[in-house]
Amino acid sequence: MAATNVVWHTATVTRERREQRNGHRAVTLWFTGLSGSGKSTLSHAVEESLFELGCNTFVFDGDNIRFGLCKDLGFSDADRTENIRRIGEVAKLSNQAGIIALTAFISPFCSDRDLVRSSMPDGDFIEIYVKCSLEKCEERDVKGLYKKAREGKIPAFTGISSPYEAPVNPEICLDTELHSIEESVQMVIGYLQTKGVLTK
Amino acid sequence: MAATNVVWHTATVTRERREQRNGHRAVTLWFTGLSGSGKSTLSHAVEESLFELGCNTFVFDGDNIRFGLCKDLGFSDADRTENIRRIGEVAKLSNQAGIIALTAFISPFCSDRDLVRSSMPDGDFIEIYVKCSLEKCEERDVKGLYKKAREGKIPAFTGISSPYEAPVNPEICLDTELHSIEESVQMVIGYLQTKGVLTK
Repeated sequence: MAATNVVWHTATVTRERREQRNGHRAVTLWFTGLSGSGKSTLSHAVEESLFELGCNTFVFDGDNIRFGLCKDLGFSDADRTENIRRIGEVAKLSNQAGIIALTAFISPFCSDRDLVRSSMPDGDFIEIYVKCSLEKCEERDVKGLYKKAREGKIPAFTGISSPYEAPVNPEICLDTELHSIEESVQMVIGYLQTKGVLTK
Repeated sequence: MAATNVVWHTATVTRERREQRNGHRAVTLWFTGLSGSGKSTLSHAVEESLFELGCNTFVFDGDNIRFGLCKDLGFSDADRTENIRRIGEVAKLSNQAGIIALTAFISPFCSDRDLVRSSMPDGDFIEIYVKCSLEKCEERDVKGLYKKAREGKIPAFTGISSPYEAPVNPEICLDTELHSIEESVQMVIGYLQTKGVLTK
């Protein structure tokens, strides 16, 4: 640079080179479902399996997003939409970096999920509907949130006082009232194998 | 899940497991400097070297951030600060994912950069001052932005009509009026070797 003209240096480490070295394609596994449906449990269990298969992965969830990248956002409809938009952008960047992104957010609105899908190259967005009845989720109430929502202590709680729009045509549906964690994980891994995401 | 109580499933794939498998630590190489100083060129050149050494890397720059994650932000002081905050959060997530994040943004304010530094574990934030005189940057004017700024067509342009606060005590200083790209890359790689970031 001192001795030569500066040439605009574009990226030489491309997504393709990363994917080739990693031995798998990068995709986004977008888990959506009610609070307590099992999104976080399943996304981490799928990640463990993928990691054991040698894949590069990362789970985005409330723990690492809500207190960091999106800490300026609340739970109004507009803020929920912006929250999902940012998560979509970060998942997209992860894919460019060769990483299989797993996202575990209620993401209740079809339109928000569809925006993320349409912002990505075809085949990158894999919507996983973590299906579980409201009754069952409320019975589990792992975090005690349904109780609080019923008591009116949490405004706009999905399933109680705010809508959840189930995916119409998700790539994968995991019914956690029917299937064990192990079965669900195998369904996801099997899907990724048939789609050529896992190539080794 | 069907047959058992749902247990809150925490992450089993930790940063430590990723780093161990990758054979290197994850850090953030934060390139800062005037427009035209060589941030983007150097960050991509360092990435190429790191990739060839087998590292997992990703460069965040205006191309992949300004039109995506931060497309809602402009160039006011407040928006610049929020821009840097989000980039810091994304770099931090990348580090958690085992990736060496390289960021190439002017990031003109010390306070913004220091906020990112203080939000990260000790040793993760490596500030790289890409040093080049305003005169030289303006002479290069790779993107023709200085000309436009001098003509008053770009408001608040760093170095012309908006301040640039050089790092006081950066981990690495690369003077692109003195050193070639190759020399600069070797300085960064050498630093990462002495600090044990590169372990193989």
